[in-house]
Amino acid sequence: MPDCIFCDILSGLAPASFVYRDEQCAAFMDIRPVNPGHVLVVPLAHAAELTVLDEKTGAHLFRVGQRLAGALRRSGVKCEGVNLFLADGAAAGQEVLHVHLHVIPRFRKDGFGLRFSPAYFIRPPRSELEKNAELIRNQLG
Amino acid sequence: MPDCIFCDILSGLAPASFVYRDEQCAAFMDIRPVNPGHVLVVPLAHAAELTVLDEKTGAHLFRVGQRLAGALRRSGVKCEGVNLFLADGAAAGQEVLHVHLHVIPRFRKDGFGLRFSPAYFIRPPRSELEKNAELIRNQLG
Repeated sequence: MPDCIFCDILSGLAPASFVYRDEQCAAFMDIRPVNPGHVLVVPLAHAAELTVLDEKTGAHLFRVGQRLAGALRRSGVKCEGVNLFLADGAAAGQEVLHVHLHVIPRFRKDGFGLRFSPAYFIRPPRSELEKNAELIRNQLG
Repeated sequence: MPDCIFCDILSGLAPASFVYRDEQCAAFMDIRPVNPGHVLVVPLAHAAELTVLDEKTGAHLFRVGQRLAGALRRSGVKCEGVNLFLADGAAAGQEVLHVHLHVIPRFRKDGFGLRFSPAYFIRPPRSELEKNAELIRNQLG
């Protein structure tokens, strides 16, 4: 895949500090960590977004992310909690167009967190939740 | 599990707007959505944190999260991208102590996003990334 930094890392053309690799995915350190110990888990086969990532590989990314969360807690890296985070699509903050799951060690007062939309502070009525649930259910097939 | 709102929802003791249910997990609307269409995926069996969630169920949460991401994009709910987010432990922002994966529809200028720690703006040297990678690798067994 031309011009994909994660494909270059996976093929050895670009440097990275690897943590894990198997036949489906690999994990390496984020070069711009939110906190020290921040890891990315990526599929070996290029997939720009979740819509083109096969489900089995998707599930495996999370399995490895969960293992890494445990490893981080035991590693000696400062880690009192963990965030798993995935941005799918530019509107969701995805910067590298190769699916990647962030595994982020967290500690109290680390300064990282979520910034909320104005919508967050309006609690919708049950009728709106039901309407959205139905729209989503209709697409699950 | 006493005093767990998600267990109450799963057993029908508390109301929720359900989107999905199978033998391992269920998905329902977050009552305080970041954006309209925000869904939570939870294991049926109570597990407070990732460390006590079996890996197979963990992988399945993500599989269902990925399906929901696709369903959201097709649903008619405003959705140009999706965030998957999981907070494991109070220090990571976990509020309900029953594992839950957030599936959040995103759109341009929705006002939601990440707030970064000061550490984010310091790019660590390769030697530090290598040191942390080794600490984590040592715990993967």
